[in-house]
Amino acid sequence: MTKEPFTLIGTAFHTPERCRLEVLQDHLFSVDAQGRIAEILAPGRPEYEARANAARQAGTLVLLADGQFLLPGLVDLHIHAPQWPQMGKALDVPLEVWLQKYTFPLEARYADVDYAREVYADLVDNLLANGTTTALYFATVHVDASLALAETCLAKGQRALVGKVAMDDPEQCPPFYRDADATSAVADTRRFIEAVKVLDPQERPLVQPAITPRFIPSCTDAALQGLGELATEFGCHVQTHCSESDWAKQFVEARFGQTDAASLGGFGLLTRHTILAHSNFINEPDMDLIKEKGAGVAHCPLSNVYFANAAFPLRAALDRQMHVGLGTDISGGYSPSLFDGCRHALSTSRTLQSGVHAGLPPEQRGAPGEPITHQEAFWLATAGGAEALDLPTGSFRVGHEFDALLIDTKAKASNIHINAADDTLEDVFQKIVLNAARANIAMVWVRGRMVVG
Amino acid sequence: MTKEPFTLIGTAFHTPERCRLEVLQDHLFSVDAQGRIAEILAPGRPEYEARANAARQAGTLVLLADGQFLLPGLVDLHIHAPQWPQMGKALDVPLEVWLQKYTFPLEARYADVDYAREVYADLVDNLLANGTTTALYFATVHVDASLALAETCLAKGQRALVGKVAMDDPEQCPPFYRDADATSAVADTRRFIEAVKVLDPQERPLVQPAITPRFIPSCTDAALQGLGELATEFGCHVQTHCSESDWAKQFVEARFGQTDAASLGGFGLLTRHTILAHSNFINEPDMDLIKEKGAGVAHCPLSNVYFANAAFPLRAALDRQMHVGLGTDISGGYSPSLFDGCRHALSTSRTLQSGVHAGLPPEQRGAPGEPITHQEAFWLATAGGAEALDLPTGSFRVGHEFDALLIDTKAKASNIHINAADDTLEDVFQKIVLNAARANIAMVWVRGRMVVG
Repeated sequence: MTKEPFTLIGTAFHTPERCRLEVLQDHLFSVDAQGRIAEILAPGRPEYEARANAARQAGTLVLLADGQFLLPGLVDLHIHAPQWPQMGKALDVPLEVWLQKYTFPLEARYADVDYAREVYADLVDNLLANGTTTALYFATVHVDASLALAETCLAKGQRALVGKVAMDDPEQCPPFYRDADATSAVADTRRFIEAVKVLDPQERPLVQPAITPRFIPSCTDAALQGLGELATEFGCHVQTHCSESDWAKQFVEARFGQTDAASLGGFGLLTRHTILAHSNFINEPDMDLIKEKGAGVAHCPLSNVYFANAAFPLRAALDRQMHVGLGTDISGGYSPSLFDGCRHALSTSRTLQSGVHAGLPPEQRGAPGEPITHQEAFWLATAGGAEALDLPTGSFRVGHEFDALLIDTKAKASNIHINAADDTLEDVFQKIVLNAARANIAMVWVRGRMVVG
Repeated sequence: MTKEPFTLIGTAFHTPERCRLEVLQDHLFSVDAQGRIAEILAPGRPEYEARANAARQAGTLVLLADGQFLLPGLVDLHIHAPQWPQMGKALDVPLEVWLQKYTFPLEARYADVDYAREVYADLVDNLLANGTTTALYFATVHVDASLALAETCLAKGQRALVGKVAMDDPEQCPPFYRDADATSAVADTRRFIEAVKVLDPQERPLVQPAITPRFIPSCTDAALQGLGELATEFGCHVQTHCSESDWAKQFVEARFGQTDAASLGGFGLLTRHTILAHSNFINEPDMDLIKEKGAGVAHCPLSNVYFANAAFPLRAALDRQMHVGLGTDISGGYSPSLFDGCRHALSTSRTLQSGVHAGLPPEQRGAPGEPITHQEAFWLATAGGAEALDLPTGSFRVGHEFDALLIDTKAKASNIHINAADDTLEDVFQKIVLNAARANIAMVWVRGRMVVG
């Protein structure tokens, strides 16, 4: 799929490394017919004017206006696509009620592919409008509905990894919503992987399959074993929940006599292309193992407030150079926005460091480790997530694919207020990270294709 | 000031009591020329059709469309008006740098009344657009600029309480930004109070003065004493910071040998019309004292993440029936939205209960007490705040003034997604509380005057 090349001139912010904000003031970006960044030029470079003039004459020049800025697209490492209709609902009930009364019955409805197509079209439109250019999706147990999600992403131009969920243990999964048995869970996953590869046969596919055991407690040993073999056979991505809560951590340790991460490793499910959602209760050996395997964590600070019992030890993971990115975890998280995700990651990290209980002496209140910065939060939502997924996006670099947002700080309903006389560009970036909303996202590109705007 | 009466028909949500959401489905609201709610009628009541027809013929009927809902206006109990230009900025530096390099120099600029007028016009427009119909403002030490804020609120129709800040202790306040001495701090506060009363001489003023010692550490004993006497003389509102951080708590205890709340009480500054910002470190006797005096707390969950060292014991305060509402605490808090405030209050309350440090056993992780619900969070942002201020607003009741928001869930850039077939009205309310953004606020009324839309 080729598109017309274009050239964009404006000021971009990105975090090519975790602790480094880079401001590309008035730079020129050339995007080629494959949607790749072919050239990035600073003002004053000899080719700058020539490129700008050529694009202007060809009618392919995009000029950012005053108050507009370019950011890399956002990468959502954990989202339950079928839960989109209940986003912002049922967060006032205990986990068991949330699962049995709301979530499982809702997910079961995706046996109806028409329902799936309708919801998934709305979901992908809305996520793109919120700036999510890449999403790692849990779908449902249904192969056809999961394929409908992959097709929808491809049609609408969202970079995506989609997983048919595997959950076959009758002790933990409801009779109306599970794989019939381990054999069919594995066979259906294979069928799904093969179908997605047919759907998007490009050398660099936009949409890829992900092997998706819901989490260890919902899968039999045989299913986990079979899915691990598929991971080896296809080398594709793997996603699952890991050590999210006290209950989940204890359940796996009681069943296998070892941690969640170690158990996944034993089944061949911990690879360079694995994303572990949550991981709040991983210990130091788990971190070493995850780092050694090259796997990553989808940190979901908002949903953790509702369904975990503690915060992810983010600083410890970053200090180990583990791959980490952010997940909205819709609908355990109520917000579809990864800008909200950045802000929740900041709050959680600061709260973990300071503690919360005023009745304790300061030294007993929090946990060791420096809180993250807003630059690090933004890195998690962009380059960090992209690196975890091993995808060539998340920052502006020649050869990377052009996944980007045009932020309009002067949009109607904007809560970003810039004072040109007083604010540095670094201040502008902080104001964007802390107050950007959907209303500020004027345009969105994925692989050079304009998908919003 | 009278306006044309009007009638509104639509579905309203409000929380007239803390734990009770009331859904007024398709109700009719009559607003009189004084901006008061004259009548609320359920469908089927005999007068309903007659009132609707009369208003339709008079051209004064407002009919909510599908997907639109009415909410009470939001009450912000703590906001530093002069810090508006640095909202979302400088939150990556330590408190001392934030104060000395950014905040005090910025506040000092309001010696220039023209600057004040320009910033305050922008501030009030933006807060109204975010649904804040009532605000309790810290201004600056400058009488004229503080009066400019009061004038701006009156002109734009925002219900407001405005305080000229008193801060006279040369040991704690910078030489370029403080009252000259205790005498002038008190005299200027008196002059400010009298001027605001002249500005808005209505029997039920829209804009009122508030006595505003910044916090005990920035005031001399003489200033605190004099301000307490003014509070008795005028019976007007009082606001200050109370026990925000470990440092603030310890400073006051070292200076007076008693807590912040008790010290304020001793100076006559703890009254039925006092609002204490933060109060994270108040103890049980403090709570009893605050309850006994009828004072209230402005809970500021977002800024606490940045500048406090623990969470406010909200559940304990509510269990005592203390007055509590929410504050954005701009610019210690980066968001101007009290919908964000509701969400941060929910997160903080849940986090306080669960704790954050996964390395601790569950029973040592958090603090006792149930987390708040989304209904309680909304109550804090509306009726709770209004009750704390002793103002006749915050819920829909005959005799209350009509401060309200029209929420359009179908607005462009909306992240509220309602499925009519599956969502109850209670679900809709939860979805609004959890995802409402400025883009959803289509109209805003204060005392019956349309101020946005």
